[in-house]
Amino acid sequence: MKEPLAWLGNRLRLLDQTRLPNEEVYLELTDYQDVAEAIKALRVRGAPAIGVAAGYAVSLWALAASSQDVLSFKKELDGVLAVLAATRPTARNLFQVIERLREVGDGLSSVDAFKEKLVQEAAAIHLEQHEADRTLADYGAALLGAGASVLTHCNTGPLATAGCGTALGIIIRAFEEDKIKLVYATETRPLGQGARLTAWELMQAGAPFKLITDSMAGYVMSTRRVDAVIVGADRIAQNGDTANKIGTYTLAVLAHEHGIPFYVAAPTTTIDRGASTGSDITIEERNEDEVTHCHGIRLAPAGTEALNPSFDVTPARLITAIITEQGVIKTPCL
Amino acid sequence: MKEPLAWLGNRLRLLDQTRLPNEEVYLELTDYQDVAEAIKALRVRGAPAIGVAAGYAVSLWALAASSQDVLSFKKELDGVLAVLAATRPTARNLFQVIERLREVGDGLSSVDAFKEKLVQEAAAIHLEQHEADRTLADYGAALLGAGASVLTHCNTGPLATAGCGTALGIIIRAFEEDKIKLVYATETRPLGQGARLTAWELMQAGAPFKLITDSMAGYVMSTRRVDAVIVGADRIAQNGDTANKIGTYTLAVLAHEHGIPFYVAAPTTTIDRGASTGSDITIEERNEDEVTHCHGIRLAPAGTEALNPSFDVTPARLITAIITEQGVIKTPCL
Repeated sequence: MKEPLAWLGNRLRLLDQTRLPNEEVYLELTDYQDVAEAIKALRVRGAPAIGVAAGYAVSLWALAASSQDVLSFKKELDGVLAVLAATRPTARNLFQVIERLREVGDGLSSVDAFKEKLVQEAAAIHLEQHEADRTLADYGAALLGAGASVLTHCNTGPLATAGCGTALGIIIRAFEEDKIKLVYATETRPLGQGARLTAWELMQAGAPFKLITDSMAGYVMSTRRVDAVIVGADRIAQNGDTANKIGTYTLAVLAHEHGIPFYVAAPTTTIDRGASTGSDITIEERNEDEVTHCHGIRLAPAGTEALNPSFDVTPARLITAIITEQGVIKTPCL
Repeated sequence: MKEPLAWLGNRLRLLDQTRLPNEEVYLELTDYQDVAEAIKALRVRGAPAIGVAAGYAVSLWALAASSQDVLSFKKELDGVLAVLAATRPTARNLFQVIERLREVGDGLSSVDAFKEKLVQEAAAIHLEQHEADRTLADYGAALLGAGASVLTHCNTGPLATAGCGTALGIIIRAFEEDKIKLVYATETRPLGQGARLTAWELMQAGAPFKLITDSMAGYVMSTRRVDAVIVGADRIAQNGDTANKIGTYTLAVLAHEHGIPFYVAAPTTTIDRGASTGSDITIEERNEDEVTHCHGIRLAPAGTEALNPSFDVTPARLITAIITEQGVIKTPCL
């Protein structure tokens, strides 16, 4: 299997996630504007993967830039970064990458040196992501015993991080270590990232899995063996309360009811020092059409009102541990 | 609004549920075989509604039957009942109706008297359903206070019973009594009865509601006011353990976690004297395609395996009360 996101020296190869799971279409992009379009159109998604793609977008622009003057080069760069910042205005990693690239040329007096530094930095961002994911996966896999059955939610694999993934990275690592008996993957309504992407990634990895609707999690935990629930995180408050894809909180309550360890896997950059507890995290409400429709087909009568919070908050008391690239944090003692 | 199932003296008018929510198509059936087809094709669904429709199917046949001899009439009736029995082999009410109609002519010596009795009996079955539903709705609505927000699952309204419904019947009755502030209706994957049918029935009733994905129930209970969860039942064991649409158990665990009353609404015929506890109830597994697809569109990669239990079992300890047409039973003391 090709990597879903790869730098080929002078172009960015990107697996178009909007065509999954039915088609595997790899784009080869040479213009930074095409990368911006790909981010906007969700061809690449998942906060870390967006950040990595944005870094390479800047590389593409730098390689083609004709300006010979550092000041005007820097001015043009600001324009490019502004275009990238406008693609997905709520993606945290995207802004971290943008700030990093904005500052990377500070003090340089040659355009060529600036270009080289930008290209190096994009590669470094990608490499760091890879390494962080790998370390996190090792920490997580060590928590699982042989013959483990695990349940996961949404998509947190290589597609989402451009590394080996977070929660799904742990599961695939544990599978490679021969520890995984079965993975239960929730479909993750309304957008179906579990059905479309996690199922595809588990299939690529050759790991045994069963797709379930979100409503089946309680049935699975009460009638079958589940050794751990492992999910990702969008944002973690200082007390360990965790915002993640809608449905995560329900899984945490169910895991607690059944005495099943509930793990959150996320890089330390996900911990938000500006949020003391989960109540400081604002829940984004998305378009109701995502709930009343599925793949463009109307499910409910015209005029139906729906809720569509994109994530929910799981209190730290329901989280057994948070697995990061720096180690495993037992909650609620962040 | 016309009733979804009505006897018009010489024909059966049926709202075709497969066309909902986008089209309201009323069929007028005069041939019992067309009723059998409608049951088979899910144009009418919900165990009580299927039973009522089957009763009228026999009326249609009896009105057109040419046999003048009681013995041959009875023999033909057995053939008709066999056709109906083959439509949905697991529907409990269907078989109760079939047995009732098989025995109704016992001792009669005239074909005309037999016909009249069959037609009367079908009407009686429908009337009894109406009355049982109404009584159950009254008992249930009395449990709700003013300004109540309630959450329900799957479809349990007039479409499902040919009366006023069970869980949804209670909610609509309470709405008519001005007690309902808001109804949260789960979409009920995989088949979407909540999105397609409950949303449509709440809209017909004019009741305020919000559609949610099944994964949003925990979010709703933890961030908004929910005064009661009310669901139906497919089968209730003697100790109160209740089998109902997949996802019900998860809602019960969540309701318990949040201190929200969890009510099961079902006629006493749903109590299975052959099942001591929930573990005596066999869980039907349906086709995996219902999970991997939605309205014919593939959601997951080809080759994906899925679970598809059509219901789960909620233990009596999580049920606040079972609401029947004979009164309210506080569990676990059935």
